[in-house]
Amino acid sequence: MTAYAELSAHFGRIAALSNAIGILHWDNDVMMPRGASPSRAESIALLHVMRHDLTTDGRIADWLDAANENDLDPWQQANVREIRRIFTVETALPSDLVSASSKATSICEMKWRQARAESDFASLLPYLEEVLRLQREIGQAKGEKLGLSPYDALLNDYEPGGRAEKIDALFDDLAAFLPGFLGEAVEAQAKRPQGPAPEGPFPVEAQRALGQRMMATLGYDFERGRLDVSTHPFCGGADNDVRITTRYDEADFSSALMGVLHETGHALYEQGRPAAYLDQPVSHARGMSLHESQSLLIEMQACRSREFILFAAPLMREAFGGEGAAWDAEAVWRRYTKVAPGFIRVDADEVTYPAHVILRYRLEKALIAGEMALADLPAAWSEGMRNLLGITPPSDRLGCLQDVHWPSGGWGYFPTYTLGAMTAAQIFDAAKLSQPDVLPGIARGDFAPLVTWLRENIHGKGSLLTTDELLTQATGRPLDPAVFKAHLRRRYVDEA
Amino acid sequence: MTAYAELSAHFGRIAALSNAIGILHWDNDVMMPRGASPSRAESIALLHVMRHDLTTDGRIADWLDAANENDLDPWQQANVREIRRIFTVETALPSDLVSASSKATSICEMKWRQARAESDFASLLPYLEEVLRLQREIGQAKGEKLGLSPYDALLNDYEPGGRAEKIDALFDDLAAFLPGFLGEAVEAQAKRPQGPAPEGPFPVEAQRALGQRMMATLGYDFERGRLDVSTHPFCGGADNDVRITTRYDEADFSSALMGVLHETGHALYEQGRPAAYLDQPVSHARGMSLHESQSLLIEMQACRSREFILFAAPLMREAFGGEGAAWDAEAVWRRYTKVAPGFIRVDADEVTYPAHVILRYRLEKALIAGEMALADLPAAWSEGMRNLLGITPPSDRLGCLQDVHWPSGGWGYFPTYTLGAMTAAQIFDAAKLSQPDVLPGIARGDFAPLVTWLRENIHGKGSLLTTDELLTQATGRPLDPAVFKAHLRRRYVDEA
Repeated sequence: MTAYAELSAHFGRIAALSNAIGILHWDNDVMMPRGASPSRAESIALLHVMRHDLTTDGRIADWLDAANENDLDPWQQANVREIRRIFTVETALPSDLVSASSKATSICEMKWRQARAESDFASLLPYLEEVLRLQREIGQAKGEKLGLSPYDALLNDYEPGGRAEKIDALFDDLAAFLPGFLGEAVEAQAKRPQGPAPEGPFPVEAQRALGQRMMATLGYDFERGRLDVSTHPFCGGADNDVRITTRYDEADFSSALMGVLHETGHALYEQGRPAAYLDQPVSHARGMSLHESQSLLIEMQACRSREFILFAAPLMREAFGGEGAAWDAEAVWRRYTKVAPGFIRVDADEVTYPAHVILRYRLEKALIAGEMALADLPAAWSEGMRNLLGITPPSDRLGCLQDVHWPSGGWGYFPTYTLGAMTAAQIFDAAKLSQPDVLPGIARGDFAPLVTWLRENIHGKGSLLTTDELLTQATGRPLDPAVFKAHLRRRYVDEA
Repeated sequence: MTAYAELSAHFGRIAALSNAIGILHWDNDVMMPRGASPSRAESIALLHVMRHDLTTDGRIADWLDAANENDLDPWQQANVREIRRIFTVETALPSDLVSASSKATSICEMKWRQARAESDFASLLPYLEEVLRLQREIGQAKGEKLGLSPYDALLNDYEPGGRAEKIDALFDDLAAFLPGFLGEAVEAQAKRPQGPAPEGPFPVEAQRALGQRMMATLGYDFERGRLDVSTHPFCGGADNDVRITTRYDEADFSSALMGVLHETGHALYEQGRPAAYLDQPVSHARGMSLHESQSLLIEMQACRSREFILFAAPLMREAFGGEGAAWDAEAVWRRYTKVAPGFIRVDADEVTYPAHVILRYRLEKALIAGEMALADLPAAWSEGMRNLLGITPPSDRLGCLQDVHWPSGGWGYFPTYTLGAMTAAQIFDAAKLSQPDVLPGIARGDFAPLVTWLRENIHGKGSLLTTDELLTQATGRPLDPAVFKAHLRRRYVDEA
C-alpha cells in the first residue's frame, strides 16, 4: 500500500468510529431512557479516547512524510493537507490536559444547569474559573504549535483559518451599524399594522407532517436521515445518516417549523458533502461559519423571503385548517420578520442576533486573554447589552448564565453564528445573481435552482478549499459585511 | 492497582464498548434510514474488531496469573473464572479465521434472503457450504483449546457448559413423547368448541398502550429501557438500557402482545442482573437456555395460564372496545393454547415447537460432524418433519430455508430454545412451590411474588454459578424433562 492509501484507510476507520459516536450522541438526546445516562457517558468517553488514540497514531507522521504529492490529484492533496492539520491539532495536547478538561466541563455543565435555574452566578464561578483556566492552557498549547494566539487557536477548532483580527474588523463595523439600524427597523415596523397570530392548538402530528413536507420540498433525503424530537433542536447522526430534531409547542407551530427549516439547512450541507470522499477529512464541512451560513441561508434568507411565504402560507393554513386574515401571506411574513430587542440569544430575530454574538465574542476574547476577571462577567454583560441593544437583563439567568457554551468548553465558537449570518447573505446574493430562477422557484415551492447551485458551489466542495477561497470562488470576494447590512436594510426598512 | 483491579477496569472498558455496539445494533434495526446501511456495517465491524483486540489483550493473561484468589470474595472469584473463560475462547481463533467467517456469513445471509424468497436451496448451497466449513474450523480450533468436540465448542458459546451428550438424552426423551402426546392434545381440543377470534382492526396505538401496561404490570423498568417497533422482535440495547421491540398487525393484536410478553421476559432477566457487577462478566446472563427460559416462563408459563387470562382478558376488551363472547376469558385462553402442527418454527405453539428444534439440532450436529452432506439437507429436513410432526413441507422456503441461524453463522444455538422451554417449566414450578401467592398474584395482575423470586434466584445470580448449579439451587435438581412433559399434559390434556 502507498503511504496515501495507508492514510486513507486509517482515516476511514476514524470516520467509522466518528459515525458510531454521532449515533450514540443522537440516541443520547433523542431516545435514551434516563437511567442509562451514566453508562452512556462511559461509552461515549471511551470512544472519544479511542478516536484520539487513532488520530494521534505515530504512523500518521510517517505516512504524511512519505506521501508523494506528485502522485496525488487535487482532492487527495487537500485530503493530505486536512489530515496534517487534524494530526497537528490533536497531537498538540498532552492527554492529561484533554482528560482534565473533559472532567472539568462535565462538572461545570452540571453546575451550570442548577446555577441558571437559580440565577446564581456565584455558585458557578469556581467551576467556570477552572474551565476557563484549562481553555487558556489548551489555547496556549495549540497556539504554540500552530503559531497562533490562544484565542485564535481555540477559534481555529471551529473555524479553520479564522483570526480574531479579522473578526474584530467585521464585528466593529456591524456593532457601529446595528444600534442605529435597529431604531430604523423598529420605526418602520411601527408604521405597518401587525395583526394577531393564529390561535392554536396546533396538533403535533400536523406540525410534524408540515415539517416533513417542507424538508422534502427543500430536497432533504429521507433515505439518509430522519426527523425526530429533542429538547434542543440539532443536526447530527453520521455520514449517510444525517438526522435533525425539533421540538413541538402546540400553542405555536412557528418555532418548530423554523427550527426544522434551520436544521434542514445544516442537513443539506451534510448530505451534499462529496460522496467519493465521504469517509475522508477532505469531505468535511469547511467550518462552523459556513455550516451556520447554510442553516441561516435556508431559514433566514430563503424561508423568511416574501416568495417563500407566498408558497408556504397556504400550506400552513391547510395543515391546521386555519381561517381568517392571520393566515394571509403578508400577515405571516410580518410575523416572521418582527424585530424587537430581547434578552435571550436563541429567541432573537435576525437584526438583534448579531448584537448577542458580538457581546459574547468580545467577552470571551478578553477572558481568554486574561484582560478581564471572570467575577466581573455579570457587570460587563449588562453594560454590553445596554450599549448594543439598549436593554439591561434583570437577572443573570436572562444574562450571562443563558448559554451552555462556556460551561461546556465551547470557547471560540460564538463568532461563527454571526460570521455565518453574514456569509449566508453573501452566498444567497451570489446564488440569485447566478441563477435568476432562485426566487421565482422558491415562490412556487421549487428549491432545485437554489440547492443545485449550493451543491455545486458550497456543499460539494467539502474542505477542498479554505473558507476564504471557497467564498471567493462562489461569490467573487471574501466576506463583506456590506452585503448583510444591505440585506437587513432591504428587508426591514425599504421593503418592510 | 492489584491484578484484579486491572482486570476489572479492563473489562469495564469492554462493557462500555459492548454497550455502544448494542445501541448501534438496536438503532440499525429500529431507527436507521436505509441509505446508512453500508456505513453502519463499517462502524459495527470496526467496534467488533476493537472489542476483539481488547478481549485478547496479552496483559489479561498476566493479570489472570497474578490475581490472588485468596484476596477475592466469591463474586470476584467467579468474575475471574468468567474472564478466564472468555479470554480462552476469544484467543482460540486466529484473527484471519474470524475475519473469513465474518465475511462468509455476511455474504451467505444476503444470499439466503433471496434463496428463501425464491425457495431455491441450490443457489444457497455453495455459500452455506463455505459457512459450514468455517464453522467446523472454528469448532475445531475452540474445541482443541477447551478439550471439546467441535459441536460442543460451538454450543459452548451460547450455552457455557452445555454438552451434546446431555442434550441428546433430553431430546430423545422428548422426541419419544411428543408425537403421541400431540395426538392426545389435538384430540382433547377437538372436544371443546373454539369460537371465532374477535375482529379488528385493532389500532396500533391501542396495542402499544396495552403492551406498555402489561410491561409495567410485569415490573419492567421504563427508566432503563424502551418499547419500539422492528421487523423481527428482539431484546437488545445496553446495560441499564434494555430495549425491546415488537411489530403490530392491525388485524390481530395477539401476536404483538405475546411478542411483548416474551421480550419482557428476556428484559426482566437483563434488568435484574447484579447491579454491583453490571460492567463485569460475572453479571452476564448465564447462557441462552436460561435466557430463553425467562422469556418462555413469562410468555408461556405465566401469561398463557388461566390465571393471567382472567386478569388480562378484561383489559384487552377495554383496550379495543371489544364486545361479545370472543372476549370472554375462557375463549381467549383457548385461542392462546391452540395446538396444531405447522411448517414454521416461529409460528409454532408450545407443544410442537420442540419438534422444530430437535430436528434442527440433530441436523446441525450431523453437519458439523461431517456425518451428512449439506446437499442432502432438504431431504433430511422433510423426513424429520414427517417423523416428528407428521407433515411434509411443500417447499424449502417452508422447510430448511426458513431460519437465518445457519446462514448467519449461529450453529449450536438451536437447542437452547427447547432447553429454555424445559427450564422455564421447572423454574416456574419451583417458584409456585416456594411462593404460593405466585398464581393468585398473577390472577389479580400482581407479578411481584413471581418476579421477586426470579430476581433472587435467577436474575440476580448473573454468572456466579454454572447453569446446572443455578438450576439445582433454585429448583432442587438439574434439568428434568419430566417437569415440562407434566406441564404439557396438565395444560393441553388434563385441564384443556
